[in-house]
Amino acid sequence: MAETEADVPPVNVAIDVVAVGNAIVDVLAPTPDEVISDQGLVKGTMRLVESDEAERLYAAMGPGTEMSGGGAANTAVGVALLGGSAHFVGKVADDQLGKVFTHDIRAVGVGFDVPPAPHGSTGRCLVMVSPDAQRTMSTSLGVAGDLAPKDLDEELLKSASWVFLEGYFWDPPAARASLIASAQVASAVAFSLSDPLLVGRHHQDLWAFCDAYVDLLFGNEDEVLALGQTDDLAEAIAKVRSLCETLVVTRSEKGSMVASSDGDVEVPAAPAQVVDTTGAGDLYAAGFLIGRCRGLDARRCAELGGQAAAAVIARLGARPDPSVPPFSRQ
Amino acid sequence: MAETEADVPPVNVAIDVVAVGNAIVDVLAPTPDEVISDQGLVKGTMRLVESDEAERLYAAMGPGTEMSGGGAANTAVGVALLGGSAHFVGKVADDQLGKVFTHDIRAVGVGFDVPPAPHGSTGRCLVMVSPDAQRTMSTSLGVAGDLAPKDLDEELLKSASWVFLEGYFWDPPAARASLIASAQVASAVAFSLSDPLLVGRHHQDLWAFCDAYVDLLFGNEDEVLALGQTDDLAEAIAKVRSLCETLVVTRSEKGSMVASSDGDVEVPAAPAQVVDTTGAGDLYAAGFLIGRCRGLDARRCAELGGQAAAAVIARLGARPDPSVPPFSRQ
Repeated sequence: MAETEADVPPVNVAIDVVAVGNAIVDVLAPTPDEVISDQGLVKGTMRLVESDEAERLYAAMGPGTEMSGGGAANTAVGVALLGGSAHFVGKVADDQLGKVFTHDIRAVGVGFDVPPAPHGSTGRCLVMVSPDAQRTMSTSLGVAGDLAPKDLDEELLKSASWVFLEGYFWDPPAARASLIASAQVASAVAFSLSDPLLVGRHHQDLWAFCDAYVDLLFGNEDEVLALGQTDDLAEAIAKVRSLCETLVVTRSEKGSMVASSDGDVEVPAAPAQVVDTTGAGDLYAAGFLIGRCRGLDARRCAELGGQAAAAVIARLGARPDPSVPPFSRQ
Repeated sequence: MAETEADVPPVNVAIDVVAVGNAIVDVLAPTPDEVISDQGLVKGTMRLVESDEAERLYAAMGPGTEMSGGGAANTAVGVALLGGSAHFVGKVADDQLGKVFTHDIRAVGVGFDVPPAPHGSTGRCLVMVSPDAQRTMSTSLGVAGDLAPKDLDEELLKSASWVFLEGYFWDPPAARASLIASAQVASAVAFSLSDPLLVGRHHQDLWAFCDAYVDLLFGNEDEVLALGQTDDLAEAIAKVRSLCETLVVTRSEKGSMVASSDGDVEVPAAPAQVVDTTGAGDLYAAGFLIGRCRGLDARRCAELGGQAAAAVIARLGARPDPSVPPFSRQ
């Protein structure tokens, strides 16, 4: 019997995570700390730059390696490589870097169906990797921030166990509208604060957004301090945890802590040979979300997050090597 | 006193190496051997592909890493990183990958001044890296093969101690004309056979070219066998050494041998943790050429070549990490 349309299962069955964010190709180059400060950059942070500034910074960098990136996109890749089903929603242009991004995310099994923008350039992030493995990022968003609510597939978003959103999407107006629209239809919202400077720029709005929509909030210490508007971490956590069901604070080599109504859990960092911290937070979120999708408790979720982060920081680039644990399923 | 034009030294003083060849950006992805054979590729070789075949092969590859490549360009980078002065002559397009190529080669101090082609695409090489670190390459040349004799700067070529040419440039007609024109004006010509299949395709022409122009010839065992048209390496070497002043045979983990009128020298391979053999021959040539420019004997040149090759095969990509020996000058 010929296959009829009714025989084809709907694509949106059992999607673990739909991630919405910037479609970005990273340009990574080992860079001495002097160059970072000479260029007026703040080590460890992300900054949006216009194309002329991007040209100037690029000229100051050594030879680069291009690899797909983008916070939420990295998380989607992590979810897929950990055995989950994931989709990514973001905007590339119809150019060479857009084709690279599209290839790389589909190659690991992440669904990605947003049509490319006919004009403009795909977003690019200049990642200066310091000798101590910290990364300093200068992002030229291109069309990435142009993802508009009309680009969203409401059924796809509704069908996911988790919709994962990145704080970086708060900067461009179209992206922000898409982020809010996605949160409004999601069954459960996970949100990453992305960057302390960003939290500072949009503090009041982000506070209200988290309060209204976010179930699971990820932030590192600096980001949680910025959202709590205090220099005291305990005080910041006490304030911020009131916003959402679960708050996860990632603490680099000190591990992570999970604060929820079930109590607090602290988990040490997984051992790692640190080469480049790019993507650590994104992959932590992937591991944690897979744990939640599988019904695991907070400690186990945090452990999975830590293992995924440890694997990605052991190599250059924001996405893990599919052939190493915990991403290889052998 | 204000600086006058006469105070500015001419740019073409003391150039060690001008390398002429394909301007290429590599797309590297770890790939199981089954995929390579399923796609009808011969492991360890390079093949030229049209854009539709490149699309099919790319779709079969896992997530990639983009890094600048191109045989002669890699050699120029190696020469610069080893402290020599180098220029590269090749053609990129006015596109994103062309900008990546241009940035990366200039960032290590290699001169590169050929204007980009206004149309077309920059060349791309799909590099499938096998679990045993061998690489299989499918090259979509784009505008790389369009470098025409009118693009050549005769004064630049004349001013170099060595003009280094790659065999891959024999395939496209414009490139071949540029290769011959470069050899005609050079004070000394070094030539890499590039690929055994290429030597087979153009055997008679390459034999005549080497006989007429080449002073220093680089080939691996398979390439020298192909040029000698025999299965016996000793016999091949005996035939091929008659073509040029110096023949260098690279033999992977068995090291290299140099045959010249001063006698034969065999040098063992430098110890290496092999991750990806892409670029090994190109960097060997860089080390050897730097040795020749510094007036070293054949053994010392071969040792420098082996050290440079060992450094590049210890990492993914065809160009060395500028921060590791022998490329770091500390």
